[in-house]
Amino acid sequence: MERHFDQRLKALTEQLFRMSAAVEESVDQAVQALVDRQSAMVDAVLAGGRRIDEWEVAIEEECLALLATQGPVARDLRLIATIIKVNKDLERINDHAVNIAQRAAELIRTPVLKPLIDIPRMAELAGGMVKESLDALVNRDVEQARRVAARDTLVDALRDQIFRELLTYLSVGAADTVERAIHLILVSRDLERIGDLASDIAENVCYMVEARIVRHQKEKWFGEVSERNPEAAP
Amino acid sequence: MERHFDQRLKALTEQLFRMSAAVEESVDQAVQALVDRQSAMVDAVLAGGRRIDEWEVAIEEECLALLATQGPVARDLRLIATIIKVNKDLERINDHAVNIAQRAAELIRTPVLKPLIDIPRMAELAGGMVKESLDALVNRDVEQARRVAARDTLVDALRDQIFRELLTYLSVGAADTVERAIHLILVSRDLERIGDLASDIAENVCYMVEARIVRHQKEKWFGEVSERNPEAAP
Repeated sequence: MERHFDQRLKALTEQLFRMSAAVEESVDQAVQALVDRQSAMVDAVLAGGRRIDEWEVAIEEECLALLATQGPVARDLRLIATIIKVNKDLERINDHAVNIAQRAAELIRTPVLKPLIDIPRMAELAGGMVKESLDALVNRDVEQARRVAARDTLVDALRDQIFRELLTYLSVGAADTVERAIHLILVSRDLERIGDLASDIAENVCYMVEARIVRHQKEKWFGEVSERNPEAAP
Repeated sequence: MERHFDQRLKALTEQLFRMSAAVEESVDQAVQALVDRQSAMVDAVLAGGRRIDEWEVAIEEECLALLATQGPVARDLRLIATIIKVNKDLERINDHAVNIAQRAAELIRTPVLKPLIDIPRMAELAGGMVKESLDALVNRDVEQARRVAARDTLVDALRDQIFRELLTYLSVGAADTVERAIHLILVSRDLERIGDLASDIAENVCYMVEARIVRHQKEKWFGEVSERNPEAAP
């Protein structure tokens, strides 16, 4: 029985990594669609998105089945609870990749608006955060997870910079560039949310490893954190 | 023991409702800050947001403690899994209310941009969806949950209409109205996400009651849905 449980947990974790690899690819493809103006990439993101939605459902079902039939405790319980949340975060990251791809599809139909500003750089940063948050999960690496979460402020700074630059552009640009510039602002918001969700995954990794909740406590990370063991009986 | 578990589960559910009432209030206050240009409302949303973040952590801890120490199955397990997800959705809705309040704070500092267009109507719709999705959860009312999820398309339609109207406004407006109009477009995106998250809660209610996953299967809701019982042993 124990052996069977371990095998199922291992298979579940592997499925989560396959899902995260697919989500990372979606983000890459969505940005590629935008930068290189490739319709084929838009289609790839949309097709991949449907598969990712199916995987999310299957992963959550398996988590609940393991909780119901195996009664995991301690480390295994925390891992399964973490997978439930990370699975949901990955699905949401994919939703943002789909948003970006759909926006790219709009932009491909219109003439090039010269400045993509710092959007490719922001995409690289946010995409890298997704990848590393999952690496931190595989390796149970709290330090790496913290580095991911810390980078969220860089993503936010780029979002603000892009906003200011496109505003300037909007103020002097012709009326027909307005819509394109706004699409780019909205793309930067999707990338911001991808960075937020990667931070959320990273914080879940810290929680899983250290059995404490670091969300909403970022400022305390390097100081005192009250230890609360969710498994302690009342 | 059984009795003790029931009491804790009841207390947990009540805490979730307190949280949802606080989140609904945040959304209301954020929109009020925007419509009535009231700085006091911005402060109220920010202060309430910190309390909601604390509640979210406490609710999740209690869910995990119940899973670890009480080994719930069947209906109770589904309820706890649903609370974990709804709790997270509520926290995210609150994040969007905070975004709207912060944007309202920016807009209060500048002269009024006449058209708030359909933003108050969109806010009312999205806020109502949040309230009703939680009512559906209390009452285990699948029909009500389905009605909530179905209204998401109305929110999306309003988002598109607001976008088109503000684009027109941007094309003919003076340069100094550009930033304000873009803030309003971004507010409409926050409201859209609030509607999405309320739909997500509603879909979780359907899943909880019917023990099947309806997410990503909206089109099948009124036709055949393959029943998959997550509690079935493999």
